[in-house]
Formats: sequence, C-alpha cells, structure tokens
Amino acid sequence: MAGQAGRGMKEHKNAITLAKGFRSQAIAAGIKKSGGLDLALIYSDIPASACGMFTKNKFAAAPVELCREHLKSKKAQAIIVNSGNANCYTGKPGMETAKSTASLGAGLLGIDKKMVLVASTGIIGRRLDFSKIKKALPSLVGSLDRSSGNKTAQAIMTTDTKPKALARELEISGKKVTIGAIAKGAGMIAPDMVYTEHSRSATMLCFITTDVLIEYPALKEALKQAVEDSFNIITIDGCMSTNDSVIILANGLAENKKVCLGARDFLKFKTALSEICLGLAKMIILDAEGASKFITIQVSGAKDDTQAKRAALAVANSNLFKTAVYGGGTNWGRIVAAVGASGAEVREKIKIEGDSFRKKDIIVKIDLRVGRGKAVVYTSDLTPEYIRINAEYN
Amino acid sequence: MAGQAGRGMKEHKNAITLAKGFRSQAIAAGIKKSGGLDLALIYSDIPASACGMFTKNKFAAAPVELCREHLKSKKAQAIIVNSGNANCYTGKPGMETAKSTASLGAGLLGIDKKMVLVASTGIIGRRLDFSKIKKALPSLVGSLDRSSGNKTAQAIMTTDTKPKALARELEISGKKVTIGAIAKGAGMIAPDMVYTEHSRSATMLCFITTDVLIEYPALKEALKQAVEDSFNIITIDGCMSTNDSVIILANGLAENKKVCLGARDFLKFKTALSEICLGLAKMIILDAEGASKFITIQVSGAKDDTQAKRAALAVANSNLFKTAVYGGGTNWGRIVAAVGASGAEVREKIKIEGDSFRKKDIIVKIDLRVGRGKAVVYTSDLTPEYIRINAEYN
Repeated sequence: MAGQAGRGMKEHKNAITLAKGFRSQAIAAGIKKSGGLDLALIYSDIPASACGMFTKNKFAAAPVELCREHLKSKKAQAIIVNSGNANCYTGKPGMETAKSTASLGAGLLGIDKKMVLVASTGIIGRRLDFSKIKKALPSLVGSLDRSSGNKTAQAIMTTDTKPKALARELEISGKKVTIGAIAKGAGMIAPDMVYTEHSRSATMLCFITTDVLIEYPALKEALKQAVEDSFNIITIDGCMSTNDSVIILANGLAENKKVCLGARDFLKFKTALSEICLGLAKMIILDAEGASKFITIQVSGAKDDTQAKRAALAVANSNLFKTAVYGGGTNWGRIVAAVGASGAEVREKIKIEGDSFRKKDIIVKIDLRVGRGKAVVYTSDLTPEYIRINAEYN
Repeated sequence: MAGQAGRGMKEHKNAITLAKGFRSQAIAAGIKKSGGLDLALIYSDIPASACGMFTKNKFAAAPVELCREHLKSKKAQAIIVNSGNANCYTGKPGMETAKSTASLGAGLLGIDKKMVLVASTGIIGRRLDFSKIKKALPSLVGSLDRSSGNKTAQAIMTTDTKPKALARELEISGKKVTIGAIAKGAGMIAPDMVYTEHSRSATMLCFITTDVLIEYPALKEALKQAVEDSFNIITIDGCMSTNDSVIILANGLAENKKVCLGARDFLKFKTALSEICLGLAKMIILDAEGASKFITIQVSGAKDDTQAKRAALAVANSNLFKTAVYGGGTNWGRIVAAVGASGAEVREKIKIEGDSFRKKDIIVKIDLRVGRGKAVVYTSDLTPEYIRINAEYN
C-alpha cells in the first residue's frame, strides 16, 4: 500500500525516544473537551542542534512565532506541544501563554527558556488556558521516560484516528545513528512550509529526534529537502493551516564523525530523514479526515518542476476530481479541467494514464508534453464523512 | 433574500425572446441520458452585434474555440447550445462536430455559418454525437418562436434544479430597450472569464439578447464590466470549467439613438446589463449543487482590489469554511486561516464581522486593515449532497 513505511523504516510506537538521550511524556491536561491526552513534552538530556520549518500562513500561531525567536540560537533541548487549541489569532494573551509555557517548562527542567520550543494544534481563535498547562507541566517533567513515545504521539492528535510514528537506524562512520519522528494531521492539510531561523506557521505537526552529530548547515539543508519532498507535497483539503510545524532536534550522542554538507554521510542522513518524512506524510494522507482512498498524482512533461507541482496540486485540490474518486466512476474530464485551470503550460492533447477510480490506492499519471518538469503530490478523496467531521468540529 | 432580482428586473420565464426580433426553440435531441431538453437555438431575425467572454481554462472546449473564431467579425445571428456533453477535450472530431453544427444550422437558417455561435455543457472528454444534432436541428429551426424562452432556459441545464432567466426594460432616447438573459450553472463554478474576439472558455453559460442599438466598443465594455462584477465573483467549488461562456447579441431593433462609449446612455445600459448578470450569478449560487446556504463575503481594507478579491475567494473556496457554514457552528478561525493563506497583505489583527452560520443567508465582512481595496464574492456551503451529486455524475 502507498502509505507503507519504506525499506529500513519501522513503524515504531516509541519512535520519538529511540535515539540516544531523548525522553518524553504525555498527559491529559484538560485542554481537549474529550479529556484525552493533550499535552506532551519531548526532551533531550543535552542541548541539541535544532531547526524548524513553519507555515507560510500570515496568521502564524503564537507558538510558531515563539519558535522562530527561540530557534535563532540554532539550539533547543525541549518541545512542549498541546492539542485541542491552536493558540492562534489569540493576540498578546496568546503569546504570553506560549512564553509562559516555555518559561515554566524551562524552570522545571532547569534549562534556559530559549531552549524550550512550543507547538499547538486545534481550534483557532480561542484562548488557550495557561492554568491547565501550569498545573500539568510539573508531573510531565517529573515523569519523563524512554517508554512513553506512543502516548506522546497520541497527545498531539486532533481528528487523527491513530498515532503516527516512524523510526530508522543507519550507520555513519561506524556508529549507529537513530532517527525517530512523530506526526499528526488529518484536516486543514496543505502544508507549504519554509525554512526559518526567522520564519512563519500547518496543522500538520512533526517532531523529529535524532542522536546524529551534524553541523547546523547540514541539518538545516537535510530538513529543508526532506520537508520539500514530503509534507510540502501532500494536500488533504487545500487549506493551509496557521500552525504547521516541523522541528528536528539532533543531540550528537551517537558520537559519529560530524556530518557536514556535501559529504557522503550527509547524503546518507538526508536520504534517511527524507524517507521518514515521506513515510509520515503518507500516513497523514492515509488517515485524512473521512478519506476512503489514497491518491498519487504524478505529473511529467511540464515546463519546469514548479509548473508540474502547480498542475499536480490543482488536480489534488479539485473537489470535483476528489468526489469522482470517492464515487469510483473514473472521470478523466475533471482532471483535464483542473490541469487546464492550473495555469501550467500544456499541449493541446496531454496524456493521462491511471488506475480505475474504483481502486483504493490510485495512481494518476499526467504528461503535459511540454518539457521536462515533474512532480508528485499525494492526496485523498473527498467524502461525506469529511464534511460531517468538519461541520461538527468546533 | 440575497439572490432575488434587483429593482426593475423580472424573473421572466420567456426572458431570452423578450427583446424585439429574437426567437428561440428547444428540443430533446437525445444527448442527455435522461431524455430531457438538451438542444436549444436562439436566433435574431437580423444580424446582431455580438461579443463574448470565455473561460481562461487552457483546455477550452471546441465550441468555445469556434466562438472565438466566429466572433472576430463582431457579428452573429444565432446560438446553438447543447447540454449533456461539453464537447471538450474531444480533439479534431470535437471541433468537426462544433463546425458541422454551425454549418448545418446556418444552412437551415439561410445565413452565413460564421454568424452561428455554438456552446456546450456537460461531461468532458466524451464524443458529442453529431448525428443527434443533425437529426434535431431542422425541427428546431422550423419551430422557432417567441414563446419558448422557458424551454430554452431548461435545455441548457445540467445539474441545475431550475431554469434561470431574467429580463429588464429601460428607456434610451425615448425608446423602450429590452435585455433578456438565461443562464445555467450548478457545479464546476469558479468563472474567471476574459474578453475575446480571440479568446479562451465556465460551465456556467449565459446568453443575453437585447434590441439595443449600440456601437461595438460600448457593447464590449458593458459586457466586460458586467461579467467582472457578476459571474467572475461567484464560486461554488473553485473548479474553473472548460466551457464557461457569456455571449450577448444586440440587434438594434429598439431603434434608440446609438449607444456610444462614455455617453450617459452607456452608463444606463451598462448598469442594467450588470444588474441582470449579477441577478443571474446569484441565482446560480442559490441553485448550487447541494447548497443549503447563500454566502456573501465582503472584504475591505485590502492593499488593492485584486488582493481583496484574492482574500475573499480564498475564504469562499475554503472547504473548511464551507463545511463550517453547513454545520452552522460559527467558526471565525477558519476564516482567519483562509485569509492568512491567501497571500493578501494583512494586519496582525483583522476585523471579522458577520452573521451566525446558523442563518440561511450569511454575510461575512472582513477588514484586512491595510488599505482601501475591496471586493465582494458570493458562494455556497459545502454539503454531503454536493458530494453525492458529483460522486454519481458521470
């Protein structure tokens, strides 16, 4: 199945604390109405190289703004994440809550507040009640361990139906290096994230922990490429969130020879990271709100890669294409209309090949017959269940 | 209600043949599986000034291409329209069918083939069977009359649940001038049409007949402005069709003093035409596939009008906003996320005011607080019924 983990990867429930020196914990802090797990802490025993990519949405949430600020130091040691409330469009009080969360966490952990990153996902525009976080943080810090990765992955879920966690081991200069990651995302998924020391905010969240020893420029480049080829090529509903965040912490405890840009080891690490991100991105699509099908759109023959991606996204975000796939009646006409509306350069006759829309796992190949640009985008179908979920979610 | 005809306008069933010198007819030619009315002819007794606006979709349907060609003369006398098949992405045979339709119609009417325009709406990518048109055209031509406007409006429907026709009378230089129009559109509605002697193709169709005497540049300008302020500001599903066409025929039989650009009469005519187009555009939204609500998005305070429209369309096309409206749980957060993702320049805090999503007719006002740009866009909610209709339509 399209969403399965690639070679060498494992769907490891405890992924986020598999790398050396990482611990985590999660708790039900009362932020979610459901009473489910909604506050998580990911912690590295020593300061880690850190970088992040965040949404381009102009109303980036307060935690995103704070991460931008804290990541200027290129270092971090902890991530505090809540679900159930996005802490977005919440003004100064929202930023105060984000800052207070980082400060209190730092105090309890005995580290500098700038070493603490925060992330949120959930409803936009409602005040996040800091008193709940304040009450829950001490026990969270006090019970950090190496076996709560699954709870941690659950605590960042909103409409997700299952936790998403992948891990991978690789060897660099004779040392075992581990990368583990968790992600969430089910709706409001059309990430287009950009790199940032000084950046902007999806409600797809992904946190990656690794014990690799790596120089910062190499870490940044590996993350950029991994996100570009994974989270930035998925779309569920074309709605870009205010909170999309991908953060990686690399603490160096694998004691490998330092990975530098351009070296062979860099390629090895980058490839492994990209595979994990793509694996998680596909898991997000497989768990898309109400989705019954997994769709791969492959565009080739475009004027350039940018135009190829534009055409692929136009099809992937076409409600008419997505409802046709749901219905199962193979309808190339809606693909033609979407490509033609995308603005991408095309020949009068393009080439469309693909699976019957009756299948569960559908690949559509579109050759624009203009040039050599190509792109792949993953998406899901649009179903009455998506509407039910989002008509009720408040 | 938002969609009601404005002052001076009438929902006149026979609108398309109210102006002097116009006749029409419609027939069930067997193109629609349902066996319903699917072929219509609109005819002016004398050659009329003609112009059209068509979709920007790069896969403009064959009839659209042929209209471009025929409209170079700035004259036309007849429009042959079929529903049930878009004759789009049908290659050379499709163009042959469009041409043969025009030629046969012209022969039967005793006019030049270039004076005949064609239009199609329906499924994309399937061959339109000319033999059905060939068989039906003679009786269509033979039974043209001034009382079949309602049948004509019905014959251009696809998933529309009711015909859409509006007419208006005005006085120009002491003469009574009549404008009548019919339109269709229920899904694949996100028109963005451009003017054309040499142009491109929505599956929203609108045909306008008027007996005004008007110079061509004035007719063209009035149509451009009317379409820009009506059909180009509605969206149902963000899917731009390959067949969107608005065509106006002005035969001059009202014998008014010729309307010229810039004159007061021009403003009068343009205003009347704009009101008719806006009235029909709103009727399209009211009859949107599966829609249960009529939504008006008003954006102000944008850097310029273009950015205002971009922000308004981003909200109007947001599946999450549209499902929230369907659900009735007022959710400003999804508006914030959509505006922030639109790329329009915004202040940190914008101003959002509006009706409860529980209402049937909802106005949302968004002030971006940057400049003086403004825009209005009309849309509908996204419902399970939309999905049912489009999952089944083949």
